[in-house]
Amino acid sequence: MNLKRLTEAMQAANVANMIVSDPYSIRYLTGYHTDPGERLLALIVPVEGPLTLILNDLFPPYQHLEGVNVVTYHDGEPAVEAMAEHLLDGVTSIDKYWPSHFLLRLMQAKPNLQPVDRTDLIDGLRAIKTEEELAIMREASRLNDQVMAQVIKKLEEDPLSEREMADYAKQLYAETGHESVSFEPIIAYGANGSDPHHVNGDATLKQGDLVIIDIGGLYKGYASDMTRTICVGTPRPRALEVYRVVKHANEAAIEAVKPGVPLCEIDQTARRHIDCAGYGKYFTHRLGHFIGQEAHEAGDVSKFNEEPCQVNQVFSIEPGVYLPDNFGVRIEDLVAVTEDGCEVLNHFTKELLIINPDLSDH
Amino acid sequence: MNLKRLTEAMQAANVANMIVSDPYSIRYLTGYHTDPGERLLALIVPVEGPLTLILNDLFPPYQHLEGVNVVTYHDGEPAVEAMAEHLLDGVTSIDKYWPSHFLLRLMQAKPNLQPVDRTDLIDGLRAIKTEEELAIMREASRLNDQVMAQVIKKLEEDPLSEREMADYAKQLYAETGHESVSFEPIIAYGANGSDPHHVNGDATLKQGDLVIIDIGGLYKGYASDMTRTICVGTPRPRALEVYRVVKHANEAAIEAVKPGVPLCEIDQTARRHIDCAGYGKYFTHRLGHFIGQEAHEAGDVSKFNEEPCQVNQVFSIEPGVYLPDNFGVRIEDLVAVTEDGCEVLNHFTKELLIINPDLSDH
Repeated sequence: MNLKRLTEAMQAANVANMIVSDPYSIRYLTGYHTDPGERLLALIVPVEGPLTLILNDLFPPYQHLEGVNVVTYHDGEPAVEAMAEHLLDGVTSIDKYWPSHFLLRLMQAKPNLQPVDRTDLIDGLRAIKTEEELAIMREASRLNDQVMAQVIKKLEEDPLSEREMADYAKQLYAETGHESVSFEPIIAYGANGSDPHHVNGDATLKQGDLVIIDIGGLYKGYASDMTRTICVGTPRPRALEVYRVVKHANEAAIEAVKPGVPLCEIDQTARRHIDCAGYGKYFTHRLGHFIGQEAHEAGDVSKFNEEPCQVNQVFSIEPGVYLPDNFGVRIEDLVAVTEDGCEVLNHFTKELLIINPDLSDH
Repeated sequence: MNLKRLTEAMQAANVANMIVSDPYSIRYLTGYHTDPGERLLALIVPVEGPLTLILNDLFPPYQHLEGVNVVTYHDGEPAVEAMAEHLLDGVTSIDKYWPSHFLLRLMQAKPNLQPVDRTDLIDGLRAIKTEEELAIMREASRLNDQVMAQVIKKLEEDPLSEREMADYAKQLYAETGHESVSFEPIIAYGANGSDPHHVNGDATLKQGDLVIIDIGGLYKGYASDMTRTICVGTPRPRALEVYRVVKHANEAAIEAVKPGVPLCEIDQTARRHIDCAGYGKYFTHRLGHFIGQEAHEAGDVSKFNEEPCQVNQVFSIEPGVYLPDNFGVRIEDLVAVTEDGCEVLNHFTKELLIINPDLSDH
């Protein structure tokens, strides 16, 4: 089904072959999944005829799939060169992330190759989730709500360092049926939250801290991702104000999601709210990213993306305000575009949670 | 100095420009280091004249370096296209891992581009360590010896699950001045050791287990990497035999290291010992890999690499035997090639250590 949609798109775009190297796209089209490291893993999709999957014989074995020729090679064999004979004449799309040395070898083996980057054809398909994929992502986010609740409970009852809290979150994902986390958890205390890409350290929780919790798991092959910001003890007026602004931006952006609306407009909606409140220069990143088998997939909600929303796309809405050396607030949800708006996959409250842990012996 | 060696090599190879995108190679040549993610980071090295460093304005700021033009771009700007004007006419080496979509855009912007992959010119330089680099790597391995001792002590006194032991090792690296681990620690109990790429799980230690401990840290920008295999309680005769064979292979290979000896011969030396003992088919990987700023760098000790050893190269010697569903043994050291042989950077004992933890409440 995925394959049929792809070859139709290839035909419309006048692409004779696609060389697919992204392991997740290969899984999407064939069910086969491995991380090839530096070795060659490629799927050749011609606009008609059987697919060819190129595997190193050190990779896990392939379960036969109708319509796929499997070609295996040993280390040291000219596998790229062997690909040339499986290509139809005409334009060949090269996966955007295929290492250049493979492409250069292929160009040498096939001097009349017409290479272009049309990875967008498959990325565009992957972005539109099937009902089956949506069901898994819904469940993944439901589990993520639970992990969030348990992380916050732990912060209240027995707050550890940022790094230890991240380890605790990882353990919760393992205990709740996840394959792994979908990205390294971010737990940022106080001023550390003013760096949107903070790396967890030895910081411990202090009275008055805002805490950014950005976590997600990988469940049945699909990622969840959510951020909440909570407060330890009575929040300062500035923190309350920023929280309100960011929450408002999050909610307004979610309301703006509808099929046909350009993604840049959704970014703009959130940005306008934050701008008007005077914090525009502290919202330093795009509003969101697409998500699916990977936490970050092709496609984003940014001022550069003029593509319209489409039904069954799933992406994050995550406005943030980061006051340097002071604190940060980010509120992130995943949304799935529906016929008349969107479904929010997370259900954890967005009201500012205030916890009062006993910090005496910390 | 590194730069001068590179432009000399380019001249000899008739390469007019190198497009360097590997962040570690860029650090090696300019001192600037960042992880660009999916964004464009490239250094153009012409065979003569100033270098050009292409940075996104979201990257950390660049400290001015003599002879380097810095060109910054915003997201959405045609940065690859702007690179074309900085290239001299003639052959241009493209970094082997540069994502193909960048190369395709550059080929379109500069139709007379003559792209080739000569990344080996810079990889070859990086493989030969300076005295300063060697001093750091010596210290990194000395610290790794200490971490190994502490991990084994913990296994004896309070054995945790594989995953928890890996976390414990990470903590030890953090406590001993490392930036991070140089790769995810591998702690494999019993039959798990028969998978050379085992992912740590919830397994707990059992009487009679062999334990593979493959660990390394990142210290002052350089990686350590060592493997030891120990035994819990009295070893079975088969385990003793395999251990002796692997240790012998490790020692024989180390003795074979000398400038001028082809790397494949060193692999062959270890492999012959294991073959003769009847375990050849269970030694399923190459003998070693080069190491430096990264745990795995370009260059390996395998049957495919006919290049000769050179003074001040650093690589691993890590023979292993993996009996499926039974146990595995691997013994890994780092060696630095010297004028008349090599210096082993690890000093942790290779005798089979037998520990007798109290496993009663585990």
